[in-house]
Amino acid sequence: MPKIPKNWFNIIPTFSDKFPKPLNPTTNKEMKIKDYREIIPKELAKQELLIGKYGKKTKIKIPREVLDLYKLYRPTPLARAERLEKYLNTPAKIYYKREDASPVGSHKLNTSIPQVFYSKKEDAECIVTDTGAGQWGSAIAISSNFFGLKSIVFMLRKSYEEKPYRVMMMKMFGSEVIPSPSDKTKTGKIALEISELSKTGSLGIGMSEAIETVMQTKGARLALGCMSNYAVLHQTVIGNECMTQLKKEGLNPDIMIGCVGGGSNLGGFCYPFIPKFTETKFIAAESDAVPVLTKGEYRYDFQDYLAFLPMIKMYTLGHKFLPPPIHSGGLRYHGKNSTLSYLVNKKIIEPRSYSQDRVFEAGKLFAKLEGIVPAPETSHAIAAVIEEAERCKRENKEKTIVFNFSGHGLLDLENYKQVLF
Amino acid sequence: MPKIPKNWFNIIPTFSDKFPKPLNPTTNKEMKIKDYREIIPKELAKQELLIGKYGKKTKIKIPREVLDLYKLYRPTPLARAERLEKYLNTPAKIYYKREDASPVGSHKLNTSIPQVFYSKKEDAECIVTDTGAGQWGSAIAISSNFFGLKSIVFMLRKSYEEKPYRVMMMKMFGSEVIPSPSDKTKTGKIALEISELSKTGSLGIGMSEAIETVMQTKGARLALGCMSNYAVLHQTVIGNECMTQLKKEGLNPDIMIGCVGGGSNLGGFCYPFIPKFTETKFIAAESDAVPVLTKGEYRYDFQDYLAFLPMIKMYTLGHKFLPPPIHSGGLRYHGKNSTLSYLVNKKIIEPRSYSQDRVFEAGKLFAKLEGIVPAPETSHAIAAVIEEAERCKRENKEKTIVFNFSGHGLLDLENYKQVLF
Repeated sequence: MPKIPKNWFNIIPTFSDKFPKPLNPTTNKEMKIKDYREIIPKELAKQELLIGKYGKKTKIKIPREVLDLYKLYRPTPLARAERLEKYLNTPAKIYYKREDASPVGSHKLNTSIPQVFYSKKEDAECIVTDTGAGQWGSAIAISSNFFGLKSIVFMLRKSYEEKPYRVMMMKMFGSEVIPSPSDKTKTGKIALEISELSKTGSLGIGMSEAIETVMQTKGARLALGCMSNYAVLHQTVIGNECMTQLKKEGLNPDIMIGCVGGGSNLGGFCYPFIPKFTETKFIAAESDAVPVLTKGEYRYDFQDYLAFLPMIKMYTLGHKFLPPPIHSGGLRYHGKNSTLSYLVNKKIIEPRSYSQDRVFEAGKLFAKLEGIVPAPETSHAIAAVIEEAERCKRENKEKTIVFNFSGHGLLDLENYKQVLF
Repeated sequence: MPKIPKNWFNIIPTFSDKFPKPLNPTTNKEMKIKDYREIIPKELAKQELLIGKYGKKTKIKIPREVLDLYKLYRPTPLARAERLEKYLNTPAKIYYKREDASPVGSHKLNTSIPQVFYSKKEDAECIVTDTGAGQWGSAIAISSNFFGLKSIVFMLRKSYEEKPYRVMMMKMFGSEVIPSPSDKTKTGKIALEISELSKTGSLGIGMSEAIETVMQTKGARLALGCMSNYAVLHQTVIGNECMTQLKKEGLNPDIMIGCVGGGSNLGGFCYPFIPKFTETKFIAAESDAVPVLTKGEYRYDFQDYLAFLPMIKMYTLGHKFLPPPIHSGGLRYHGKNSTLSYLVNKKIIEPRSYSQDRVFEAGKLFAKLEGIVPAPETSHAIAAVIEEAERCKRENKEKTIVFNFSGHGLLDLENYKQVLF
């Protein structure tokens, strides 16, 4: 059977400047493992705080138990979008890495599996998390089920109402799914009071609800989809695998593109390439309704609404930012993860923002040409791909564009209907 | 990029007895091409009536335009269900061919693409069809969109109401989707009058509605999902591809299993193996609510409710049979295709039937162990796989079981909810 990467890629040791580490939200001092008070397993705390090998080595061995589960769906295909090329009449070659081919339909499983694995190894009994569109929640539901743990998922209320199939999927795998804000936590109760907008939920609110629940539940651990250093680390299985596949086809990527919510799919896809492919252009596509990288500030900020989690240095719109109810639940977050923010600040990754209408048109076009319905989040990357392919046409340059097809939109069809029909 | 089969496999020339051909529904004489009166394209009529090479040659070359589209999703993976093996504590090895990995989530695209291709080649402007659960309708919607044709899909009313996402998917690809029975045809009007049960629809009613529409619409051609000889022929791309993959792993299948609605996924999967693998056990898993192969008669019968289409020799419950409203829309058909019926009658393929509760429990178990939610139809095959794997355990035999994972159930989660939650 085909081979998959044995290592994750840790980009931190390749940084030229000192990387800004997480700070304790109460004391403002550099975060220590014990400060996590067992909210996350120790091994993940080490990965987050770059302790030991995680601060020094670029190759991090993937545990055998994690590889065994990666094998259920990896390697994911590298496909070429020939119909899109032809339609755009561009000399560019367009490839996409199909992370939609996983059982949950997205890249999220790449980090949910190791997060639950490390939790189980340290005797956790229950995983608690929050989710936007439900891709991350489904990944946690499946992974917890694989390792025999209970799971509780706080799901953005707007997505909970719009995506009943995502809810059913999580329930089928044994999760308790709670629309957020809920009346089960202090955070939830506050958010239910503030405004009509806050009632639709935000990833910051969901995160605080999850943390409160972990603190009150014996044997519970928190899982986080995209904002942590470890989530990005685990996602680098995508980039490592993609590099092997491109090599096999004799291809060098001139442009690499991904959409960004917290930043983990883009990071996992691009980071292994960054040190070696210094001529490559890396593009992060975000929503113009949540313009974190294009209009936010680069500073220390809180990750969650009630500021339970460590402060991290990142691009941010402020941790109390309430996103408009756009149809890309996965992109409704006020910040971006710390490594991505560092690389954007260093101008190694270029951020761009796209409007909802343009994004859904791009998604529909891709579906009609290539047959696969992209998740609304993924369609942000496709909007950027089209922009770059059209530039190649104007400049008559035969570039190789590779993008991360982070997830399919089969369970997001209601969103397409609302925007396009 | 990986290779895919260049040929379909035509099983007819390997039959020991004369194969019973379709009969004209009015004259009862052997059907001729001109009898089709352009309802289907001529090339498909030749395939159906086994004219020329289609009656003689086992290797049928796949047209280049069809191969180009197969490349969008083929080869589909061959995976091993190691967790299921471990759970059942069986010495059997269980493999599955992942036809869910196509853009519509099932094997249906393998024949919708050539059907639309041949129609377009003969200047059709519009494709009309019927669909049960919506897998076939989605395949026709995408394929028609690829070739720039309009499409009209009559969808079983029960499925239309239960599966809004399937409807949205078809509409996204430009199809007109009509719940069947409808008031747009003579058949539909009759069916709406008969009983509460007939109002929920049947594949026979949908088929008659589609044919009436073809006869009234200029430039329209009919497409059929599973009952025709050509649909099975096109599906053999699965078996040919699977044979290469098994060879590469050094495996010989002892038992091959598929679910059966009309019989095209099972046929496409098994037929290439039948002449060479004479020791292999082939199993067709059907619903005990529509027990065509296990309790039907083997005789000539009509394919559709109002008897427009040719009579074929098949196992049948009678063409006016109204299936109970089970949750496997794709299996609600009164007959099975002609080649499958022939092979069951010759005892080359063994039929078995399974109850809805058992099937959904099997599907849920598979999802929880392997991470992929099977379509309710596919779960019939899984029930048979579990039965065989348990037998291997009792008899302590290390057999290789291979089954066709015909489609995923992400858009059928509502059915799981209704049966299991």
